[in-house]
Amino acid sequence: MTSTADQARSIVAGTEADTPDVAAATLAAAEAFSTYRATTPTQRADFLEAVAAEIEADKDAIVEAAVAESNLPEARIAGEVGRTTGQLRMFAGVVRRGDHLGVRIDPAMPDRAPMPRADIRQRMVALGPVAVFGASNFPLAFSTAGGDTASALAAGCPVVVKGHPAHPVTGTLTARAVSRAVEKAGLPAGTFSFVLGDGVELGQALVQDPRIKAVGFTGSRGGGLAIAATAAARPEPIPVYAEMSSINPVVVLPGALAEADTTALAQAYVGSLTLGSGQFCTNPGLLFLPAGEAGDAFLEATAEAVAAVTGQRMLTPGIAEAYATGTSALRDTDGVRVVASGDEGGDQAPAPMVSEAPAELLADADSAVAHEVFGASGVVVRYDSVASLLPHLDALEGQLTATIHATAADSAEAAALLPTLELKAGRILFNGWPTGVEVGHAMVHGGPFPATSDSRTTSVGSLAIERFQRPVAYQDVPADLLPEAVRDDNPWGLRRRIDGELE
Amino acid sequence: MTSTADQARSIVAGTEADTPDVAAATLAAAEAFSTYRATTPTQRADFLEAVAAEIEADKDAIVEAAVAESNLPEARIAGEVGRTTGQLRMFAGVVRRGDHLGVRIDPAMPDRAPMPRADIRQRMVALGPVAVFGASNFPLAFSTAGGDTASALAAGCPVVVKGHPAHPVTGTLTARAVSRAVEKAGLPAGTFSFVLGDGVELGQALVQDPRIKAVGFTGSRGGGLAIAATAAARPEPIPVYAEMSSINPVVVLPGALAEADTTALAQAYVGSLTLGSGQFCTNPGLLFLPAGEAGDAFLEATAEAVAAVTGQRMLTPGIAEAYATGTSALRDTDGVRVVASGDEGGDQAPAPMVSEAPAELLADADSAVAHEVFGASGVVVRYDSVASLLPHLDALEGQLTATIHATAADSAEAAALLPTLELKAGRILFNGWPTGVEVGHAMVHGGPFPATSDSRTTSVGSLAIERFQRPVAYQDVPADLLPEAVRDDNPWGLRRRIDGELE
Repeated sequence: MTSTADQARSIVAGTEADTPDVAAATLAAAEAFSTYRATTPTQRADFLEAVAAEIEADKDAIVEAAVAESNLPEARIAGEVGRTTGQLRMFAGVVRRGDHLGVRIDPAMPDRAPMPRADIRQRMVALGPVAVFGASNFPLAFSTAGGDTASALAAGCPVVVKGHPAHPVTGTLTARAVSRAVEKAGLPAGTFSFVLGDGVELGQALVQDPRIKAVGFTGSRGGGLAIAATAAARPEPIPVYAEMSSINPVVVLPGALAEADTTALAQAYVGSLTLGSGQFCTNPGLLFLPAGEAGDAFLEATAEAVAAVTGQRMLTPGIAEAYATGTSALRDTDGVRVVASGDEGGDQAPAPMVSEAPAELLADADSAVAHEVFGASGVVVRYDSVASLLPHLDALEGQLTATIHATAADSAEAAALLPTLELKAGRILFNGWPTGVEVGHAMVHGGPFPATSDSRTTSVGSLAIERFQRPVAYQDVPADLLPEAVRDDNPWGLRRRIDGELE
Repeated sequence: MTSTADQARSIVAGTEADTPDVAAATLAAAEAFSTYRATTPTQRADFLEAVAAEIEADKDAIVEAAVAESNLPEARIAGEVGRTTGQLRMFAGVVRRGDHLGVRIDPAMPDRAPMPRADIRQRMVALGPVAVFGASNFPLAFSTAGGDTASALAAGCPVVVKGHPAHPVTGTLTARAVSRAVEKAGLPAGTFSFVLGDGVELGQALVQDPRIKAVGFTGSRGGGLAIAATAAARPEPIPVYAEMSSINPVVVLPGALAEADTTALAQAYVGSLTLGSGQFCTNPGLLFLPAGEAGDAFLEATAEAVAAVTGQRMLTPGIAEAYATGTSALRDTDGVRVVASGDEGGDQAPAPMVSEAPAELLADADSAVAHEVFGASGVVVRYDSVASLLPHLDALEGQLTATIHATAADSAEAAALLPTLELKAGRILFNGWPTGVEVGHAMVHGGPFPATSDSRTTSVGSLAIERFQRPVAYQDVPADLLPEAVRDDNPWGLRRRIDGELE
């Protein structure tokens, strides 16, 4: 145990933040806002890269704390550190490029008849201080310095993180790394704050605070909906980007099944389903499988694969308990058949399970089949034809992902599914599994409600920066008073839209 | 009176739509969605241009009806027809260019270690059927085929318009023109629907309808907030773009006042204030004027200019009544002094009024000074120094616009105001007046709450199309199944972002 980690543990032991701490953090954020939002692209990008470097400097202590607090394997956590720093550096690149500033210039037309046209210029500005709620299942990449924080900072917004109570030391260590970068960059301390505490009250106080102008959240549907309701009920409602729940339907088409190595396909499915105890937003919770012999064979291979998996320790006792409740409800549902279970892995490490259910239960909101069980529980639904499948897909709620397994022989069927799936999900993938969300420019980790509270965006990938901005137009503003981004001499070398046409 | 208008009158007389009509319209919209959203950029742009042409074909009848129903002058209404058709054609250009599809491609990296990268492509898709609430004060440009409708149609969303009860014949005529374009384009009739009715219930039913996926609204704060609350309370909450209220502060700086032709400046102010009976969202309701002699002279010139204006007939009896109530409240407020009133212009045509109030009242939420009076009522607040002004500007609610009158001598003061104003308003303008919102690519007609319910966008200008879209990512989708927008051969010739870099 390093001394840094010891220090973080002492901090955690001593600090159960209550609402006054929230108020202090939001006040500091509000005071930091004018300075931080005025940073140049280079300053802000340098700062984001410095945050990544400071996290790397404490990598050993952070990994050790995160493994201890999350029960996740060291290799996974080490990978997550890389994902977190990579994400920060990606946003540094986005900020340097400056396309997110969305510069538009409609030059004056003094001679236009019947009325001259004014000079009008548009750029994006930062919304204001952002509250970020860390996720239980990604103590780094979706937490203190994760995607929400990185994209909000990239947009020019100070951030107040409510650390997740399941990994307070990890969060504190990460927060200290970010704050060191803030200090070294000469930015106001309030550019980044970290508050800790178990209570729902603390989160509510943060969302209700009038200085907070947007919220990022990754977690449960209940938590996300509560935050969205609180934000909507404020005297000044604010946007909430809550990434909540998804069962990520997978459709295996007959051709894919016929051509596949059945055992390998089943093992890949079970691998995705049980990865990290199934504690992923993109866990493949629902699989549509053709009726008939090939499907039977896949199900048998799946049963074998599941039976060979031993449960891994889940993140928290509460999550393990919810998994137990959810899988019991499935077992107790008329018409649901347990295909196979793995072995329990000891305390807080329940057995993975695959069950089979009739399609009709999907549409029954009271049925256990219709709800996400967070963890390694998969439901298989058999179907006769793609035509019979469509209404069931259509009846599903909004999803983060939808997957099709298809070969060239399935082309017509896959094409028939696509229009429905793209209205249901933020990401459509072929011949793969939805776990493993690439951080990049084209990624969408979002989707229609209730997968998220706001389908118009993504919480992973560079588009996420747009969540924390709003446009301002400058009309006939004297040249020397214009913000750099919209000046004629274009000091930041930005791509601009002139009269609607990109330069 | 043309026969087209006669027909529209009969339709209006016979149709008071109730909730079943809403349901029929939304059902038709939902059924039209899959066909309409699949139109190519060329098809959709041609259609938008056809809508403009059909409106022009009925221009005489539309102008006649709108003048009769709105009490606005014929020249203004004729101009508004041009604005409406120009807006539709601008969106046709946006659709043809295709930048709104936001194509991003992160090509596969099969050899990347430790994990290969999948091929990921992103494009924007239409949200679904959109409900549009027409505005009272712009029977054309912000109503049936106005900016909300044009941008939603451009995004690929079918539209259901709730016509404004103040101009049902205008709305019906316009709707018939749009529907002719729908028919001639061979699109499903449900691509565009128009429902009429006085009741709040009809609007609520429309917003509550599960087939509606977003709402555009221009109108009162009360109306906008009610719609936003209804939308947030749905089982599936949806985005609401409500443009609500704004008092559009104007700051006259000392240098500008010293250099100005005082009479001309005062006349320009009063001209903007009383234009169209002051019935503009961007009406300059609050003006900050330096204390001292130059300010006194401006106020005297303003008094003269106001006294010379006769009230024009307002849009509806309700709006005239609200104006009377608002101006009475101002007169009855301790500390408020009426600078001057114009003459009444007869029934429903109250006198314009300028009053002077102490700055302290701005922060008093219970004071009449703190609230928008829709119509030609302006409040002048005197100030000693820019430093003393800043807290008052900071305490203002969110605004559509903020205006500064400045010369080179005011440069430092103007620079000090800008950071505050750009957090308060969607558009900042210099040495002009906020009325007259240019339709273009750089315009922002939006702003922080309560100017709008969603500051992240605009309801005028080409950026408005983005309100009705969401991103979808396609991962390893076979080439022949990819949507045209993201295909390698780029059949629509789109500007694409490859690995984060614009082509």
